[in-house]
Amino acid sequence: SKGGGSMGENGCVSWKFERKGVIQFSKEKYTEDQLMEAALEAGADDLRDEGDVWEIQTAMADFNAVREAFEAAGLEMIHTYSLIHDDLPCMDDDDYRRGKYTNHKVFGEAMALLAGDGLLTLAFEVMLEQKNVPPEVLVEVVREVAMCAGNFGMVGGQALDLDAEGKQISEAELRKLHSGKTGAMFIAAVRGGAHLAGATNELLALTHFADLLGLAFQITDDILDVEGDPAEMGKSAGSDEKKHKSTYVSLYTLAGAKALAEKTVAEALECLDSFGEKAEPLRRITKMMCGRKS
Amino acid sequence: SKGGGSMGENGCVSWKFERKGVIQFSKEKYTEDQLMEAALEAGADDLRDEGDVWEIQTAMADFNAVREAFEAAGLEMIHTYSLIHDDLPCMDDDDYRRGKYTNHKVFGEAMALLAGDGLLTLAFEVMLEQKNVPPEVLVEVVREVAMCAGNFGMVGGQALDLDAEGKQISEAELRKLHSGKTGAMFIAAVRGGAHLAGATNELLALTHFADLLGLAFQITDDILDVEGDPAEMGKSAGSDEKKHKSTYVSLYTLAGAKALAEKTVAEALECLDSFGEKAEPLRRITKMMCGRKS
Repeated sequence: SKGGGSMGENGCVSWKFERKGVIQFSKEKYTEDQLMEAALEAGADDLRDEGDVWEIQTAMADFNAVREAFEAAGLEMIHTYSLIHDDLPCMDDDDYRRGKYTNHKVFGEAMALLAGDGLLTLAFEVMLEQKNVPPEVLVEVVREVAMCAGNFGMVGGQALDLDAEGKQISEAELRKLHSGKTGAMFIAAVRGGAHLAGATNELLALTHFADLLGLAFQITDDILDVEGDPAEMGKSAGSDEKKHKSTYVSLYTLAGAKALAEKTVAEALECLDSFGEKAEPLRRITKMMCGRKS
Repeated sequence: SKGGGSMGENGCVSWKFERKGVIQFSKEKYTEDQLMEAALEAGADDLRDEGDVWEIQTAMADFNAVREAFEAAGLEMIHTYSLIHDDLPCMDDDDYRRGKYTNHKVFGEAMALLAGDGLLTLAFEVMLEQKNVPPEVLVEVVREVAMCAGNFGMVGGQALDLDAEGKQISEAELRKLHSGKTGAMFIAAVRGGAHLAGATNELLALTHFADLLGLAFQITDDILDVEGDPAEMGKSAGSDEKKHKSTYVSLYTLAGAKALAEKTVAEALECLDSFGEKAEPLRRITKMMCGRKS
């Protein structure tokens, strides 16, 4: 399943169109509407190909019989804004994202900056306008998303990443960097689904699972950057080496990274042992995300 | 009064220091902590000198006997992030903000981008961690802030502003642009205070007041850009003309803009008539903001 609520087959994108009444500013040549649309399409590609926060959230929905997809929409918007800003010339300066021009290549830097700012803000609006969740639960879920997306999580990880450029950093530093940059949003996705389902005792095991899943995902990413098929990835391989980034491959060699990925996946799956059959969607996603080719 | 809760004399800045435990990522040479600190200091200058969303919120707090300053902190963070991103080379490319170097001049573009992203995200975290407000009220207040800060409001206004560069636009277009860019955050500040105090019947009049206050503020800004004292403003005058921006002065001449400002202030004050004595702080702020020299 691809989420519930008012979302159709295309997830965020179709949902986005339904909101046109709200996103009504800027009807000029390059509207922000178009920017966001383009951006969310890129995001949608990501999640279709890789299994991403959307998939995790949907799996959590299956897991918990919670069908609200609003948090997944919010997380996907946050994910997409981070890609737009990350591609900007002052950051990674990428011209392509999954085989298409990046946002700023099409709309210019200033509009891309605003599209990212707008998406991040819209994510919170969208999550907070949810009416089918008790307000005290909603406040907690959205607050955790903000925490995971901000300086304690994703933005903080990005800052560490900038600081680490051109250096070989230690495994502990690399782990901390990725815990923020990637892992925190996995945690937001998993814990959000759990909160929405009223989980209490299960939270710790699920948080641990999400953290390890994020790590396994990142190691896989580093491996793919070395030996992935550029055609399937929609980007050229070897970009980490070109940018002199510390990776699990540069730390442990390719074989060492593969062994670590395998071990981490096994540990992540162990966290789900007590949940039996109903954790099957999470197991499926774990294997899919860490066995991916692109 | 300068707000209540855990905030001291310096508003956001001192409050910010108390949160150091949370903002713990990136302990490198240029920490995001330092970035945010520098940014919030610039923000604090703004509000001390000009009376800004902080002052409005505090006035609303007096008005409503609500002493929680959390929304003011959130709004000031959003205001500050918008200044950091607005100063970036791809936007206004400003080197100075109130007599100090802008964030990216000190920390570089990439870190300034992240500092802005981090502040915007932190604003939501801070607002949502408030425990002394009923969750259903909190959800509504923060949702409105997101709406006013996003594409329907501030970010949308910025996008219109970009589109309008180098053109002379109509008064209706200029009004719409500023309603978004400036007015929406005034509305968020005033309506937030009102919601928190449990206002219902008063909301419409206060929203109207906030909208007109935002307009009067903007006209005053345009006038100051022509005849303000550069020393007092901490920036050079004439920057609108240099950037070929449409302003109320370019539309109506200096004398016409002054007349319009006066008329708008009078209309704003009229909206407060039914509130009698308790709206005095709002009247004081209106006069202060629109009679300012910098």
